[in-house]
Amino acid sequence: MIIVMKAGAAKKDREEVLKRIRELGYKPHVIHGTTRDVIGAVGDERGKRVLQSLESMHGVENVVPILQPYKLASREVKKEPSVVRITDGVSAGGKELVVMAGPCSVEGEEQIVETAVAVRDAGARMLRGGAFKPRTSPYSFQGLEEEGLRLLAKARKVSGLPFVTEVVNPETVELVAEYADMLQIGARNAQNFALLKRVGQLPKPVLLKRGMSMTIQEFLMSAEYIMSEGNQEVILCERGIRTFETATRNTLDLSAIPVLKERTHLPVIADPSHGTGNYHYVAAMAFAAVAAGADGLMIEVHSDPEHASSDGPQSLKPAKFARLMEKLKLFAEAAGRTL
Amino acid sequence: MIIVMKAGAAKKDREEVLKRIRELGYKPHVIHGTTRDVIGAVGDERGKRVLQSLESMHGVENVVPILQPYKLASREVKKEPSVVRITDGVSAGGKELVVMAGPCSVEGEEQIVETAVAVRDAGARMLRGGAFKPRTSPYSFQGLEEEGLRLLAKARKVSGLPFVTEVVNPETVELVAEYADMLQIGARNAQNFALLKRVGQLPKPVLLKRGMSMTIQEFLMSAEYIMSEGNQEVILCERGIRTFETATRNTLDLSAIPVLKERTHLPVIADPSHGTGNYHYVAAMAFAAVAAGADGLMIEVHSDPEHASSDGPQSLKPAKFARLMEKLKLFAEAAGRTL
Amino acid sequence: MIIVMKAGAAKKDREEVLKRIRELGYKPHVIHGTTRDVIGAVGDERGKRVLQSLESMHGVENVVPILQPYKLASREVKKEPSVVRITDGVSAGGKELVVMAGPCSVEGEEQIVETAVAVRDAGARMLRGGAFKPRTSPYSFQGLEEEGLRLLAKARKVSGLPFVTEVVNPETVELVAEYADMLQIGARNAQNFALLKRVGQLPKPVLLKRGMSMTIQEFLMSAEYIMSEGNQEVILCERGIRTFETATRNTLDLSAIPVLKERTHLPVIADPSHGTGNYHYVAAMAFAAVAAGADGLMIEVHSDPEHASSDGPQSLKPAKFARLMEKLKLFAEAAGRTL
Amino acid sequence: MIIVMKAGAAKKDREEVLKRIRELGYKPHVIHGTTRDVIGAVGDERGKRVLQSLESMHGVENVVPILQPYKLASREVKKEPSVVRITDGVSAGGKELVVMAGPCSVEGEEQIVETAVAVRDAGARMLRGGAFKPRTSPYSFQGLEEEGLRLLAKARKVSGLPFVTEVVNPETVELVAEYADMLQIGARNAQNFALLKRVGQLPKPVLLKRGMSMTIQEFLMSAEYIMSEGNQEVILCERGIRTFETATRNTLDLSAIPVLKERTHLPVIADPSHGTGNYHYVAAMAFAAVAAGADGLMIEVHSDPEHASSDGPQSLKPAKFARLMEKLKLFAEAAGRTL
Repeated sequence: MIIVMKAGAAKKDREEVLKRIRELGYKPHVIHGTTRDVIGAVGDERGKRVLQSLESMHGVENVVPILQPYKLASREVKKEPSVVRITDGVSAGGKELVVMAGPCSVEGEEQIVETAVAVRDAGARMLRGGAFKPRTSPYSFQGLEEEGLRLLAKARKVSGLPFVTEVVNPETVELVAEYADMLQIGARNAQNFALLKRVGQLPKPVLLKRGMSMTIQEFLMSAEYIMSEGNQEVILCERGIRTFETATRNTLDLSAIPVLKERTHLPVIADPSHGTGNYHYVAAMAFAAVAAGADGLMIEVHSDPEHASSDGPQSLKPAKFARLMEKLKLFAEAAGRTL
Repeated sequence: MIIVMKAGAAKKDREEVLKRIRELGYKPHVIHGTTRDVIGAVGDERGKRVLQSLESMHGVENVVPILQPYKLASREVKKEPSVVRITDGVSAGGKELVVMAGPCSVEGEEQIVETAVAVRDAGARMLRGGAFKPRTSPYSFQGLEEEGLRLLAKARKVSGLPFVTEVVNPETVELVAEYADMLQIGARNAQNFALLKRVGQLPKPVLLKRGMSMTIQEFLMSAEYIMSEGNQEVILCERGIRTFETATRNTLDLSAIPVLKERTHLPVIADPSHGTGNYHYVAAMAFAAVAAGADGLMIEVHSDPEHASSDGPQSLKPAKFARLMEKLKLFAEAAGRTL
Repeated sequence: MIIVMKAGAAKKDREEVLKRIRELGYKPHVIHGTTRDVIGAVGDERGKRVLQSLESMHGVENVVPILQPYKLASREVKKEPSVVRITDGVSAGGKELVVMAGPCSVEGEEQIVETAVAVRDAGARMLRGGAFKPRTSPYSFQGLEEEGLRLLAKARKVSGLPFVTEVVNPETVELVAEYADMLQIGARNAQNFALLKRVGQLPKPVLLKRGMSMTIQEFLMSAEYIMSEGNQEVILCERGIRTFETATRNTLDLSAIPVLKERTHLPVIADPSHGTGNYHYVAAMAFAAVAAGADGLMIEVHSDPEHASSDGPQSLKPAKFARLMEKLKLFAEAAGRTL
Repeated sequence: MIIVMKAGAAKKDREEVLKRIRELGYKPHVIHGTTRDVIGAVGDERGKRVLQSLESMHGVENVVPILQPYKLASREVKKEPSVVRITDGVSAGGKELVVMAGPCSVEGEEQIVETAVAVRDAGARMLRGGAFKPRTSPYSFQGLEEEGLRLLAKARKVSGLPFVTEVVNPETVELVAEYADMLQIGARNAQNFALLKRVGQLPKPVLLKRGMSMTIQEFLMSAEYIMSEGNQEVILCERGIRTFETATRNTLDLSAIPVLKERTHLPVIADPSHGTGNYHYVAAMAFAAVAAGADGLMIEVHSDPEHASSDGPQSLKPAKFARLMEKLKLFAEAAGRTL
């Protein structure tokens, strides 16, 4: 932590700051500058955000943190990339890309089973589908809940694909975990710490989506919440951030992929469907994500998007998805990955 | 809903769209334009977001919603402003402004009782203080939990001020409701729909903070979640949105106040402490919020901000808060309010 | 400047960095931390952004600037607030608030003269009106150009109000300066450095609007451009930044007012018309700006907004403006100002 | 244009709106909805933004534009993609990708000539380098100006690469055009309409960078400014937008590439150096841009980034650039392009 004093701060103020730094268990180092003093506080900053409170002290201009506040998620703690195993034969973070595909919501048996088979035939390794849906409006379709989980299990049986589905409430996490192969934390719950802690206590991989206005550092702190409870099997998913641009539903921040790869050992995938909100742009952004270094993709596929209960405009039909997967192979190869 | 067709869309595509609009229970009206057709779909759009899925159809350029999707929160349903009663003698939305003040976190009995008395003496009508804290880092102080609630109750007894405190988990909502006079939904949980529904089922006023990247429309949809469960006692709180500017912790969007006042009958308050993240700017923004039409304020006050467990830099000392309240009276009067 | 080394950086890398710091004319101070070293580089950083290039060196994690990069605009250089004199009797930054009002564009003699008289009668001290218009579309009305300047001069003669008008091209700055009492740099040109330098060479006050995605620091750097050419008569204008919120045209960042007041001695005004883009919200935000500490306001007034060539939706009719000014007096008084 | 009336608007208000629509040369169509009326105004909206002013009328809720306001840049006017010819043998928008590389600023003859040769040898088809530099600080290096142009011409002679360089002032556009093969409009001048018009009058291709807070629609309107003056040779460049994320200097919006490709026939390239601000991330984002459909890249290369006068942290050394180009070939091939 670096404490920047005001230009012309009184010596007394500086002494108070030094005293307080020592009280907090750090060792202060003063650098006398030409117009102001700067104080370095040496010691592990993690878990001690209280240093920031020095900003309230007389004569202090601001306090600049130096260390990243996450540990378990960091490359400093674990240098080599992690491979998260989802089931026998399906994992994320290795040489093989993992593509998860399926509808936004589970709507009925035929829909989910047919889609599962179609996306498997096109090369997807996992099925996605929402049973508990976090919807902006209380009047929108909220998902089939447990019935949706049963249908997903049915689709898994028929297609052989493991599935990931969203959890939205600590009270139903265990129920979902009984059925699902991986639990998803959605963007709106990415800082729902009660939920993060709960999934951190289960022996089940977690797909953590980036919140809409989450910095990369906060994203890693949310992963750290899960990991600090004991569950190290976390996959990160970039799914678009909120910006001023309205031509796309969100702005898919693909530069987050190389940044995350540098800072964390966890696998990183991208969701071009939510990222763009428009099926026209999904293929281009799927290719781009893989070129940027993503370990996989999550893509919405619906056999009848005009009749979808949610997110129709961003869903691909199975035939379009199959063509995407065909072309994706070329980009995977260019990136030194398999599909 | 307005459906904009592509320039040169085939007649067949248009007929398909018209058919689908009728299937969904709307009455279509075609306007033949100079370069493209536009179709108006007449019927109540609320609860039928499925119309958006028409965007997937051939020949459709985009779909523009016309109606606001909230009902209970809207001025169309209730024209006159609502007054939310918190306790006998304390309410929000009437002529009298309501100021809620206190520390970010409850840290101990002396701290919370002293602060409660101090803010009461300065003119605050409610005490605020966190017992369950949603913290970005799992290694930060997470609050005293039930012990914190007991201390808040103690402070209420001594000071006579009712208190508001945050809920973070559906599982502990009822516990908090046993102690608190008002439940707070924090910015990070503003789209935690499971939590919104739970507080909507209790006979207890709710202070709903705007999420960091929430549009005003989404903010009102979150209020609608609470109200649609039966609880109409909702107070909205503007607390800053996330933008590119880093001179302040968030960007307090005061224009949200007149916009909200136009669209909803619910009371609206502002939180200049979280909004700016810096105690230097709190008074200016408190005055501005009242001038913009706010029904009240939430302000962080801590007797010893240099030693605060959280949010020290944005907390006022009691003496500064008392001076703020003194000056606030002048602005309240200019706004035709009492304090 | 603080140079943060990577955890485990080689001693050799550190030595290279120290050498380079000395070459650049700074004195390095090493602080040995528990996981990494931090180097303070002492010396005036202003005008030497080249230190940032140390980030390219081996073993360097990042480089954190400590000093604000502006001088002439800063409170460190000039402690007391500046009063910018526009004409005899009209100035900004003193006890009296200065309100500038008028149409977005000058459209004709009757329009501008009538509006000038009306806003003067309501208490405005300056007339505003665009002759050279920066319009997003090449097909939109681009202003009356020199004819517009002549009409503004006519309106000044009749009403007695000095006027401010925008400059958009270094080639026409002198022409505009022959007519106008103050030159305006619009938001889209706030980092048009050629234009900033040109107005910095004239003995004419400048109203500098904040760019749509400009940080407060960049805003002050643009003021510094003007001042470093010799012209110290700069008034800053907050007019809204671009965010994700679409309920208002921009997000008026009123917290910029206390932040600017702390960092610079220059006067600061606000433009609630462009800030909100909707005449419904102008009065509330005008009051709020004054409560936040603004030295004045710029407000769009048009006698016939339904027929305005530009920005009709955000213009007030003269009668509404007069009522706003009436009520504004109360807020000015609460803020210890006169109107 | 769609005019949405307020719920319960008076018949008289509606009649006034209809009358005004007819006055403006449009044909109104009323759709009577269940809670409000909606009016379609038929006629070409381009160049008539004045319809927006209907929002000021009594009883009007809001006005929704339907058409995109650009013509010459649109796919509706020209369906097939444009190929912009820069010199014999170098063009953008065809099958071959065009890579432009070089330093941020021209600093001296050796630097620019050496870099030109190095980037040519690695496969770049154009040289980039700034002679007139728009710098945030007036105290930063502002470029070598005409001397820089001469050095760029020298480097062109030695390397055989044509060059692109930035224009910042209408007064020096012709001077730059005498030397350069293509003129660049930088992000800060992307809405400097005086400058756009000037380059639109010259027979010289223009590289237009997206402004930091420019929507895609505004970006195309700036291209339209150039094209409406007669110059159709415009190449668009996505270079990152400003968001809340600070891990990268800007957020490279790669989804802008497929969106632009859908809306305009103009070639689109990407600048991963400014987009990320960090040389670590440049290669990943270069690959991603090509996978997303970009027609080329602009990349900063500097032989000695630690000593660069500007933008050192985002510059690649020649050897790293050569490795990037090697790997880029694989992605170009996957995208069906040549390099």
